[in-house]
Amino acid sequence: MLRSCAALLRTLGAPRGPPGVVWRSFSSEKVIHKDFAVPNPSWSKDLRLLFDQFMKKCEDGSWERLPSHRQTPLQKFEDFKTHFLDSKHMKEEQMSQAQNFTRSFEDGLGFEYVMFCNDIEKMVVCFFQGGPHLQGVPGFIHGGAIATIIDATVGMCANRAGGAAMTANLNINFKRPIPLCSVVVLKSQLDKVEGRKLFVSCSVRSIDEKTLHSEATSLFIKLDPNKRLT
Amino acid sequence: MLRSCAALLRTLGAPRGPPGVVWRSFSSEKVIHKDFAVPNPSWSKDLRLLFDQFMKKCEDGSWERLPSHRQTPLQKFEDFKTHFLDSKHMKEEQMSQAQNFTRSFEDGLGFEYVMFCNDIEKMVVCFFQGGPHLQGVPGFIHGGAIATIIDATVGMCANRAGGAAMTANLNINFKRPIPLCSVVVLKSQLDKVEGRKLFVSCSVRSIDEKTLHSEATSLFIKLDPNKRLT
Repeated sequence: MLRSCAALLRTLGAPRGPPGVVWRSFSSEKVIHKDFAVPNPSWSKDLRLLFDQFMKKCEDGSWERLPSHRQTPLQKFEDFKTHFLDSKHMKEEQMSQAQNFTRSFEDGLGFEYVMFCNDIEKMVVCFFQGGPHLQGVPGFIHGGAIATIIDATVGMCANRAGGAAMTANLNINFKRPIPLCSVVVLKSQLDKVEGRKLFVSCSVRSIDEKTLHSEATSLFIKLDPNKRLT
Repeated sequence: MLRSCAALLRTLGAPRGPPGVVWRSFSSEKVIHKDFAVPNPSWSKDLRLLFDQFMKKCEDGSWERLPSHRQTPLQKFEDFKTHFLDSKHMKEEQMSQAQNFTRSFEDGLGFEYVMFCNDIEKMVVCFFQGGPHLQGVPGFIHGGAIATIIDATVGMCANRAGGAAMTANLNINFKRPIPLCSVVVLKSQLDKVEGRKLFVSCSVRSIDEKTLHSEATSLFIKLDPNKRLT
């Protein structure tokens, strides 16, 4: 049985926890809901400064920090186990190992990032420090890792504006490579909505904004709650 | 000091090891050169069958299996340490942790894949099984992980045809989501060469070829050995 969009929409609508709060699974005592979008010892001074700057902007309510978890609240729903056990691809052991791609690394080795959104401006900003396990050309971030953090950022921008949606197109121009362990700033903006289509653009720049590392456009399609995903 | 293209080109031209052979670093006894593009216990029956099929095609020399490593032969070069120690972003500890993004997961959890190339046809085929740490929407592979394996495949196709090159553009249409732990087939083809520009396209299909999951076009630029990367 394939997962229905209706179930997914219920999942995405699940309540979020306050910053730093750790939830526990309904089925075990394993910690599943740590919020990773807060500083840890691997964060560079640059990343901490940007975090602090934007936490101040959150004080008047114009910006909001977005929590981020390794596992989705999906696992809190009773239909989860039934769904995956019916899958022809996933074994029960694999199911229990499922993790969000961008949060599946140990602290500092992969994607360290925090996103902030401004719902009135329809913007999401992401501060990203790419760790040593994201290497492409020696010394630089892999193009796929750049595509991943762009996809996550534009996806968040689309979801904030239009609810549950999936990437239909992602078009990236890679202009300047990003050195491993440096910090870059992603700015994404909802440009247009046409029916179920959401058009979101994104830039990836150095902290001082002088270097444009990448530019992207994307198209998202809002999910139809009455249709299955595959 | 930033790494020069000339050094990178030397790196990419470094000798490759035969399948399964493990090399040892010049600087320590740590194993750095295991070939990951061979079956391991996490591979599904589907992935093993495809591997066996293409290993047979390699017997007459028309196809070649491409080895794949966690760390690049760069670390065999004397200039490596000097380069990274001069970097303002990477500490020595992080330098020693640098790993190729697509090979930075434990067996079965991330990107399990093998690529085969046909240099006469200018094609690279990749068989890919996406593990549970690549999750995006619950139960499915993250769009960024799909972009990553596409980038790796078209990049290999460009490099086989034109030498060292970097992604300048990647344009992906995501048509049908890919269930976690399933196996898909990527076929990439060099379409055109214009000076230093290489145009490569790619499709991602189910094993039976009935489902087109994604389609991509890409542009690569051959590196100029006399210019630095940034």
